[in-house]
Amino acid sequence: MTEETRTSYQTLQWQGDANGHLLLIDQTLLPCEFLEIPCSTVEAVWEAIRSLRVRGAPAIGVTAAYGVVLGLQAVRNADRSTFDQQLERTAEYLAGSRPTAVNLFWALDRMRQKAQQIPQLSSIECHEQLWMEAIAIDCEDRQMCRAIGLHGSQLLSTGMSLLTHCNAGALATAGDGTALSVIFAAADSGKQLHVFADETRPLLQGARLTAWELQQRQIPVTVICDNMAAQVMRERRVDAVITGADRIAANGDTANKIGTYGVAVLARYHGIPFYVAAPSSTFDLQLPDGTGIPIEQRSPEEITQHFGRQTVPDGVAVYNPAFDVTPAELITAIITERGIIHSPTAERIRALFSE
Amino acid sequence: MTEETRTSYQTLQWQGDANGHLLLIDQTLLPCEFLEIPCSTVEAVWEAIRSLRVRGAPAIGVTAAYGVVLGLQAVRNADRSTFDQQLERTAEYLAGSRPTAVNLFWALDRMRQKAQQIPQLSSIECHEQLWMEAIAIDCEDRQMCRAIGLHGSQLLSTGMSLLTHCNAGALATAGDGTALSVIFAAADSGKQLHVFADETRPLLQGARLTAWELQQRQIPVTVICDNMAAQVMRERRVDAVITGADRIAANGDTANKIGTYGVAVLARYHGIPFYVAAPSSTFDLQLPDGTGIPIEQRSPEEITQHFGRQTVPDGVAVYNPAFDVTPAELITAIITERGIIHSPTAERIRALFSE
Repeated sequence: MTEETRTSYQTLQWQGDANGHLLLIDQTLLPCEFLEIPCSTVEAVWEAIRSLRVRGAPAIGVTAAYGVVLGLQAVRNADRSTFDQQLERTAEYLAGSRPTAVNLFWALDRMRQKAQQIPQLSSIECHEQLWMEAIAIDCEDRQMCRAIGLHGSQLLSTGMSLLTHCNAGALATAGDGTALSVIFAAADSGKQLHVFADETRPLLQGARLTAWELQQRQIPVTVICDNMAAQVMRERRVDAVITGADRIAANGDTANKIGTYGVAVLARYHGIPFYVAAPSSTFDLQLPDGTGIPIEQRSPEEITQHFGRQTVPDGVAVYNPAFDVTPAELITAIITERGIIHSPTAERIRALFSE
Repeated sequence: MTEETRTSYQTLQWQGDANGHLLLIDQTLLPCEFLEIPCSTVEAVWEAIRSLRVRGAPAIGVTAAYGVVLGLQAVRNADRSTFDQQLERTAEYLAGSRPTAVNLFWALDRMRQKAQQIPQLSSIECHEQLWMEAIAIDCEDRQMCRAIGLHGSQLLSTGMSLLTHCNAGALATAGDGTALSVIFAAADSGKQLHVFADETRPLLQGARLTAWELQQRQIPVTVICDNMAAQVMRERRVDAVITGADRIAANGDTANKIGTYGVAVLARYHGIPFYVAAPSSTFDLQLPDGTGIPIEQRSPEEITQHFGRQTVPDGVAVYNPAFDVTPAELITAIITERGIIHSPTAERIRALFSE
């Protein structure tokens, strides 16, 4: 375990010119070891996404865009048709790394479309443009995080104690995160905050990643088991809850990491505001409400074997939904890069998007 | 892992006459291994309680009573004064095994008082009487469990799906348990039930012990992480919640394993009845309400290191309350061996005790 703390750490960073490489924090080693791994090939990027060395939808998207740049370095001097074929192969290959990650497909499509818009350029010129496009995706993500942080920090005042669930931090994005960006921006503006981090079973992203990030930023954090959230609320030690989101329906119903819905119910019972922080790309306006959001079921072994020893008898059934849906009526406000939607409804969400 | 299931297993059983020994299930090995360990000395009993091979307040009390019998086997033929001195030493020694266990002190006091009531008897006669007293404590616990089960099973009907938290089963008592006794009695009377078992962080008694017990009794059980309880309730897959209790105040406020209070809030939000099953010895009528119940804080390592690998960064604060208090207004009924207290209030509880 490194004792050193960092005031800044970068989940991912491109180093050098279009022939450079990508540096990633290996998140599977956190919180015990801080290691940045250089990825010089598309295969290394594929493996890093597949093995969850990099995770979080926005971070995966940016990583994949840089992965395309890496996959085309060997054909910079080839003819354009060879280059375009290699682009297709690379994008298809990377799409197989995490088959359900929407941001991954979105980033790969954007890279393909960029190349299609400039058929007149040589391979080397096109490769330079694709590198610039990956940088643009990266920068847009950082700007989005920053804007969410600045909007949301208005909701926080000094002395507040917050509760968060899972990891919606810098480690999930190229920038400062979503929920944690709000906390970072408030702290940067001089507000004194304390954070309770739910450990977030089964994969413990709260204990492993959120606690690590807050420690790095020197923001006081206390880890609790998920089943202790009600008790800290009852003790009046939580002034607001803030989480990220994986998908938000047109009426504001919000899918996020399993356990989020329960925390929202507890917050309502204790009269505590419940905030969601997410970029506008998280909204799926085609979905009228949360009933249309499919809930991914994950492997029982995440629960029964996760810690390296068996904790459930052989042959016993296990239910392991990865997400739940928090109804809009339990959400005090949704914080986006475009502004804050208080008491979200379909009308208010539409209004923000039509501005 | 044993694949065999048992229709009966005994947390503890005395074998032979007053010179016999105690057989205990080593609960630290569950759910992967079923091993009954013979305890022939008071030192072995002390170690089994200390190391949580036997746990659960009623089970610890009965074990300690048998421990006194073991500790006096060597002085059966000594003079009575030597015998009485050895009784004091044995009781004091056993009291140090789990310093906060109320049932432990209660059982040891009862054994001491028994000996004091029969000063005219020889050591060997007194030892026989103490053995009978330990058997009485054991039998009373089994009868108490059975009565709770029979009363509570009236609340359950076939086809119901229940949710329970932690382990309030046979493994926590000499008999069939408290919350699980209700489920076992209903199942024995032919009712078809399904049970969701919260894994119950940090020590996973739900995943390890409750799931094992239900599997042994061939009652369908599904393990979930604590933070999934809200989701299964939202999916209308839970018809009632039933838990045990560690201490109940005069007004019905109930201390139980951390997480119980949150489940009670979730049950209320979803319109699901919330039942507590506990013997009348759990009531502390001197305490007017739950605010007087101290909440034990336990070691951070239970959260940060429990699974054999570090899951929280070094230097990060951890909050680990062992219990929480569920206010009486969230409890639909308390099931005791004397009967059921619906919508518990101080008046209704007093009425049951004055019958």
